[in-house]
Amino acid sequence: MIRFECDYAEGMHPRILERLVETNMEQTAGYGEDSYCERAAALIKQACGREDIDVHFLVGGTQTNLTVIGSILRPYQGVFCADTGHLNVHETGAIEATGHKVIVLPTTADGRLTAAEIRKAYEAHWNDATHEHMVQPGMVYISQSTEDGTAYTKAELEEISAICRKCELPLFIDGARLGYALAAEDCDHTLQDIARLADVFYIGGTKVGAMMGEAVVIVNPALKKDFRYIIKNRGAMLAKGRLLGIQFETLFEDGLYFQVAKHADKMAMQIRNAFEEKGIKMLFDSKTNQQFPILPNKMMEKLAEKYAFSFWCKVGDAHTAVRFCTSWATKEENVAELLEDIKKL
Amino acid sequence: MIRFECDYAEGMHPRILERLVETNMEQTAGYGEDSYCERAAALIKQACGREDIDVHFLVGGTQTNLTVIGSILRPYQGVFCADTGHLNVHETGAIEATGHKVIVLPTTADGRLTAAEIRKAYEAHWNDATHEHMVQPGMVYISQSTEDGTAYTKAELEEISAICRKCELPLFIDGARLGYALAAEDCDHTLQDIARLADVFYIGGTKVGAMMGEAVVIVNPALKKDFRYIIKNRGAMLAKGRLLGIQFETLFEDGLYFQVAKHADKMAMQIRNAFEEKGIKMLFDSKTNQQFPILPNKMMEKLAEKYAFSFWCKVGDAHTAVRFCTSWATKEENVAELLEDIKKL
Amino acid sequence: MIRFECDYAEGMHPRILERLVETNMEQTAGYGEDSYCERAAALIKQACGREDIDVHFLVGGTQTNLTVIGSILRPYQGVFCADTGHLNVHETGAIEATGHKVIVLPTTADGRLTAAEIRKAYEAHWNDATHEHMVQPGMVYISQSTEDGTAYTKAELEEISAICRKCELPLFIDGARLGYALAAEDCDHTLQDIARLADVFYIGGTKVGAMMGEAVVIVNPALKKDFRYIIKNRGAMLAKGRLLGIQFETLFEDGLYFQVAKHADKMAMQIRNAFEEKGIKMLFDSKTNQQFPILPNKMMEKLAEKYAFSFWCKVGDAHTAVRFCTSWATKEENVAELLEDIKKL
Amino acid sequence: MIRFECDYAEGMHPRILERLVETNMEQTAGYGEDSYCERAAALIKQACGREDIDVHFLVGGTQTNLTVIGSILRPYQGVFCADTGHLNVHETGAIEATGHKVIVLPTTADGRLTAAEIRKAYEAHWNDATHEHMVQPGMVYISQSTEDGTAYTKAELEEISAICRKCELPLFIDGARLGYALAAEDCDHTLQDIARLADVFYIGGTKVGAMMGEAVVIVNPALKKDFRYIIKNRGAMLAKGRLLGIQFETLFEDGLYFQVAKHADKMAMQIRNAFEEKGIKMLFDSKTNQQFPILPNKMMEKLAEKYAFSFWCKVGDAHTAVRFCTSWATKEENVAELLEDIKKL
Repeated sequence: MIRFECDYAEGMHPRILERLVETNMEQTAGYGEDSYCERAAALIKQACGREDIDVHFLVGGTQTNLTVIGSILRPYQGVFCADTGHLNVHETGAIEATGHKVIVLPTTADGRLTAAEIRKAYEAHWNDATHEHMVQPGMVYISQSTEDGTAYTKAELEEISAICRKCELPLFIDGARLGYALAAEDCDHTLQDIARLADVFYIGGTKVGAMMGEAVVIVNPALKKDFRYIIKNRGAMLAKGRLLGIQFETLFEDGLYFQVAKHADKMAMQIRNAFEEKGIKMLFDSKTNQQFPILPNKMMEKLAEKYAFSFWCKVGDAHTAVRFCTSWATKEENVAELLEDIKKL
Repeated sequence: MIRFECDYAEGMHPRILERLVETNMEQTAGYGEDSYCERAAALIKQACGREDIDVHFLVGGTQTNLTVIGSILRPYQGVFCADTGHLNVHETGAIEATGHKVIVLPTTADGRLTAAEIRKAYEAHWNDATHEHMVQPGMVYISQSTEDGTAYTKAELEEISAICRKCELPLFIDGARLGYALAAEDCDHTLQDIARLADVFYIGGTKVGAMMGEAVVIVNPALKKDFRYIIKNRGAMLAKGRLLGIQFETLFEDGLYFQVAKHADKMAMQIRNAFEEKGIKMLFDSKTNQQFPILPNKMMEKLAEKYAFSFWCKVGDAHTAVRFCTSWATKEENVAELLEDIKKL
Repeated sequence: MIRFECDYAEGMHPRILERLVETNMEQTAGYGEDSYCERAAALIKQACGREDIDVHFLVGGTQTNLTVIGSILRPYQGVFCADTGHLNVHETGAIEATGHKVIVLPTTADGRLTAAEIRKAYEAHWNDATHEHMVQPGMVYISQSTEDGTAYTKAELEEISAICRKCELPLFIDGARLGYALAAEDCDHTLQDIARLADVFYIGGTKVGAMMGEAVVIVNPALKKDFRYIIKNRGAMLAKGRLLGIQFETLFEDGLYFQVAKHADKMAMQIRNAFEEKGIKMLFDSKTNQQFPILPNKMMEKLAEKYAFSFWCKVGDAHTAVRFCTSWATKEENVAELLEDIKKL
Repeated sequence: MIRFECDYAEGMHPRILERLVETNMEQTAGYGEDSYCERAAALIKQACGREDIDVHFLVGGTQTNLTVIGSILRPYQGVFCADTGHLNVHETGAIEATGHKVIVLPTTADGRLTAAEIRKAYEAHWNDATHEHMVQPGMVYISQSTEDGTAYTKAELEEISAICRKCELPLFIDGARLGYALAAEDCDHTLQDIARLADVFYIGGTKVGAMMGEAVVIVNPALKKDFRYIIKNRGAMLAKGRLLGIQFETLFEDGLYFQVAKHADKMAMQIRNAFEEKGIKMLFDSKTNQQFPILPNKMMEKLAEKYAFSFWCKVGDAHTAVRFCTSWATKEENVAELLEDIKKL
């Protein structure tokens, strides 16, 4: 079985593993106050093109979301989120468990929030005579790339950022797959743009080369205060924090993060192209590492004999949309074999 | 200005006030452990036709909702609720503040949840391979009558109750306006049915004759344990609890609760009939104390000169749905004057 | 049985009841946005000697504590509190339920926090190398008068306020029995001092003449924002808010609040003096409405035949400290009878 | 500088690292549903001598504490904990952030809770007439070994377990350093005893050979339900869960866990003995990997030139108690050098 089910099936990029081996017996301070974390933070600041940001390392995505959101909102505030957003659908109520409503907004057909919907919902709140009886919008959460593999363009991010600043709603970008978005062939922006447009965001490691780890970047000075307290308060402070520092240091010291993302996106686009050449339509127009072909059920069953992929949704009676996912670890020969098999279908 | 804006504009039914005057200087134990609360509970048990239920008195609706829901759910569970439900829309995130997601279900056009939607959502959760990554449905919340003035029939409540029991989801009925539902001309069930079909519910006092107060009735024995602890934990235990006991004693000692509700419903139906005779359509088919005529804007403006009512929503460019609300305190002569004015329109 | 058990055994001051009767059928806006609340707030501002404060009306003490504290602290912060504080002992974990640790500080023998202990604990936190692993002190909570009936002097309040401002810890004064403290024969300060020294405090109604109600006064501008949202979020917004407004209007329009407190304190001091004349020692040096004689067990049993009072604690094998509590409703003739009976012991 | 500051200064045991290298490119299911986690759980069941237990793998200690405690308590309940307990002192309010009070109990001088104190506090709660106004005791938390390096004997654990079962208080044992307790030269019990006496406990990996990871063992069937939901709800579910499985598999497949603990304890006892031979007193009678000599300040300064250790507390003006901590990674030659230097003092 060749697996394209998800982007977290393997361990970690070999170069990271190598660094773990090299550094294993070193003694360092705990809780992220070691020189590896320090250097990793410095490299990320450099990649973001600015020094005036705080960088913290956490272990996982849901943990990061609940920590960041809990650090920003007051008790009666909620977070705007796409109805398909990870926060809303796949975190077992983790955000609500910290006391906050996820306020669902409608999205484009491929899972992106729009500045217009944010403004509309914000104004609707404040124009309502009974607004004190409703959750107050307190921040905006988007994912780059989205759950549907699609990505915001620079113009869209600019627009969203502008409306957020106008409404004084901090913009939080979930970058669990940020690498794949930035490495996409049609991407028109950089990490530096993200660091300019977001108030806080994270650079996902778990799905982009690391064994685990998300690097939180706090840009807005008002959101920096006491962030380490809240990390600990949420049970999210890793004792051997250098494990996170070593990984991000390796990913950012010579661009490895972007290389592995580029590889995954390239593999994904080969798969997409092969499907499209067979006349298969895609559910979403994704240029990143997740591809969603709408397969005739027979064809899906045939492919499932040899390849693992995820069920996404039924499309009529005769078709099914599935997800093929690539990663830093996807092997070229496995993709080549898949391409052959698609051709033969 | 004659007011039909809401059902909590006046103080309390004169007979309650009289009882407050009579009992004012008596000394009683605090925190609901007095003889008035005891007798009120006994009367409510009698009205429910059973002794094996617990009765507690709280001050307000949102307080009651967050206390009851918080007492039932485990941290990763949420509550099924109509998208128009009070919980979801008008409680400033009070339920989420206790850590729980309000899981929104689609409703009928007039705001009622259906057994079919509950079953569908329940099954969708458990059939999903990733269900551990999603909030687990833990209970069902409905309002009788609903925010739209409509009410569930006995058959609908039977169906909902049956599916809840099958799925082991406690059914919680918000009865802030329960009196108005039970007193409606077409109501086919009684308080005893409610006490048979719900696991926990409350009998609203604030909007039905009392100055404040909601009587929580816990039917399901599994939900009774330590309820007074959680009342206190939520800041919902009234020091001079007898103030609540005296009110519910008065409302239930000779059927006053149902009389005042019947009066309000009758007044509301007169208003409805007057509008319908003028060819005005109603937004919802309500038989309770809330009526929602869809008025031509001109007509609305004319009425607004003399009467206060609530804006509900725009219906096209030329019409507006508004809410007329009656209560135990609505005066017959004021309604008569309104009926005249509607005729003249 | 003549009762001296607590200060919330009766209903409400007759003048308040009278006002309820007079205003009962008036129609007002809900949720505290009526003219009674407005006037009550204006009268309280006047009594505090300043206009630049916000006044809100809540129903009960625990509710007020959890609402105010939850509005101030960030998630990793706790509140400094006397080990005997109501927050810590008698609120069923209500503060922790909002996510915050009650950080217990040692007190004087009669239940007062000191500026020295606050400073010490504050410095200990920040001087500890592992402070990020400990709850951060976020505010200070004291009660005036305390659970032991004792009261802070003006100098003590000045000192505490000064250290709080130096440490940027908002000072919150629980005034459930504020009237009794201010009306004490040796009280050297006024409500205006409280309003100058606290960042936020409340004027207790439930125990000082009202049927229920606590008037929160927010002095520190930084704590005012969106307070009505958090009231609603905590289930603490009363639908018929005018019920609270009417009570505080009556209590503050001509000094009734202070008169009833003075009466209670006077009654309490008569009881104290009678005990002391018999050679009975008091557990605490209280000048307010709570008195704690240390009675020989026999004498206690004798008194208990005719009077109700509260057990406080055992003092050796042969003595018991008990609490006699007076209130606005304590009758002079009942006290006279008690004084006689003490003399006869 | 030779470091004895803590037991989490290095990476991971070389055999674990080796296994990471071997398995790195394997593809497995995520979220702990892989064969490594399965096998690690089976090995732990075997080591516990029973099959009827559930095993889950989490990343860190505070995270584990807040997840387990949050899964057990109802909102108005708290957890009994030593005043020196990690929960109470060093988790930045993480337990309170999940809504629960840490109810502090007095301990023995060396940090152990006693069955007598638990019973006393439990009875005090239920005997108090106002118990509904106080946090209800809901479970008991102890650490084996404790923060002071001391350990409960089998008889003490039996007694605590018995009182917990009598009071229906689940017993939760924090085993962050469980290995060091079980490997101590005077330990009179085994992992099987722990699994018999606790309702839920965890086997610490972070401080005993792993790079991270705590293995939660749920013994009491009533506590097993939906535990994976709450792991996810708390942001504690690791995407590449096999990283935890691989570590515990390695630690438990041939007793490595106990070997590394034995090594650390042996090193620690050598240090202790060397100090005692010099006439230095120990602050606590620890037989585990943490030793607390009370050093004359001069001697402390001298040692600090070459060795890193932790400040614990001042003992009079002239002495300071410090902590020397060993681990699986402590090198025999470093200890030998230290012993020499102690002799020379």
